[in-house]
Amino acid sequence: MKKLSCFEFQRGRLFVGCLPQGRDLILSVEEFCENALIHMALFSVIGAVSSATIGVYDQKQQVYVTVKEEAPFEVVSCMGNVSLKDGKPFIHAHILLSDEQGKTIGGHLFSETIIYAGEINLQELTGKPRERTYDNDTGLMLWK
Amino acid sequence: MKKLSCFEFQRGRLFVGCLPQGRDLILSVEEFCENALIHMALFSVIGAVSSATIGVYDQKQQVYVTVKEEAPFEVVSCMGNVSLKDGKPFIHAHILLSDEQGKTIGGHLFSETIIYAGEINLQELTGKPRERTYDNDTGLMLWK
Amino acid sequence: MKKLSCFEFQRGRLFVGCLPQGRDLILSVEEFCENALIHMALFSVIGAVSSATIGVYDQKQQVYVTVKEEAPFEVVSCMGNVSLKDGKPFIHAHILLSDEQGKTIGGHLFSETIIYAGEINLQELTGKPRERTYDNDTGLMLWK
Repeated sequence: MKKLSCFEFQRGRLFVGCLPQGRDLILSVEEFCENALIHMALFSVIGAVSSATIGVYDQKQQVYVTVKEEAPFEVVSCMGNVSLKDGKPFIHAHILLSDEQGKTIGGHLFSETIIYAGEINLQELTGKPRERTYDNDTGLMLWK
Repeated sequence: MKKLSCFEFQRGRLFVGCLPQGRDLILSVEEFCENALIHMALFSVIGAVSSATIGVYDQKQQVYVTVKEEAPFEVVSCMGNVSLKDGKPFIHAHILLSDEQGKTIGGHLFSETIIYAGEINLQELTGKPRERTYDNDTGLMLWK
Repeated sequence: MKKLSCFEFQRGRLFVGCLPQGRDLILSVEEFCENALIHMALFSVIGAVSSATIGVYDQKQQVYVTVKEEAPFEVVSCMGNVSLKDGKPFIHAHILLSDEQGKTIGGHLFSETIIYAGEINLQELTGKPRERTYDNDTGLMLWK
């Protein structure tokens, strides 16, 4: 029976800041990590977006089904991590959005999600950074 | 092109506790921060409320549209931060609620959200606390 | 008037890892905590499940109403804590799920929620661990 496989990390720098209006959420966080030489991190965001692209993984077909919404949303929660893929900082995050009536949609965060306003906290992790590689069982890029 | 603007903080005291039944969620956290001399923090809550007031920001009109629900809800997630506004600890948080069928609504947390039961963890941040000031682009009170 | 009652903790070990496919989410985290001698912790998860059991607390009847869903979901957020109950590590977590259309349901996480893939971060807390005991006002097992 498989077990939870964990790796221990040390806490590095802790950042709190504002996301830039009009920019892609994922790309702006990846750019920040590249510039700050962050290879592994945990982060969360609250705020608002002017459009969003989210996906849900089809576990049978092993592909993401994505939905692009050209509308404003509140970012109720967005939790994610940074690790390495092909040697560069790579974001994996899930996001929950609410519309004008408070109705919610959520899933895997994709690019083409544009920031209206947002507050991020990002905890750098030091220690051996994890690398994402293809996992045969799920078809996902996971940590080995 | 705008960039993510981050500030580095040190970790101060870490608190875990119970929210007081029958009291306003935001006010009870603000009161705790005032008493403990906390000027900057990150926190999250899980629990339940007996009524809730949430809002979604109308990005065109630049006003919050709020909804008040006089019903019990599970607090599926509530993520927020504490910083200074007019020199006093000020809460910014987003909340996700679920009703008896598991159906969800979410958005910006407002006062007049009354705790039934709740568990909070709050990480104090030390370093220069951020002050909220009016942002012309969004109409929101953001960190400069 | 009741106040927020908080306890201060120190940060212990910080773990990041993968949840085991096909296993019960709660049981696999509890097992990890038992093996690693963790008595108190905060954690969050993003990922996917192949089936889920969630509940919402009926505040009048003081019982959980649970729903079991035999379908795949994205885990948009899952936030929880570990403390002691009957001397053993006990998980309290809330979870938000989204289906193929991005539609969400959420609530209190129960066992019989089976992992498809998941990434967890778990922050051990050191200091006097909290014990859960029955709370007369809510009918819940809370920290005294």
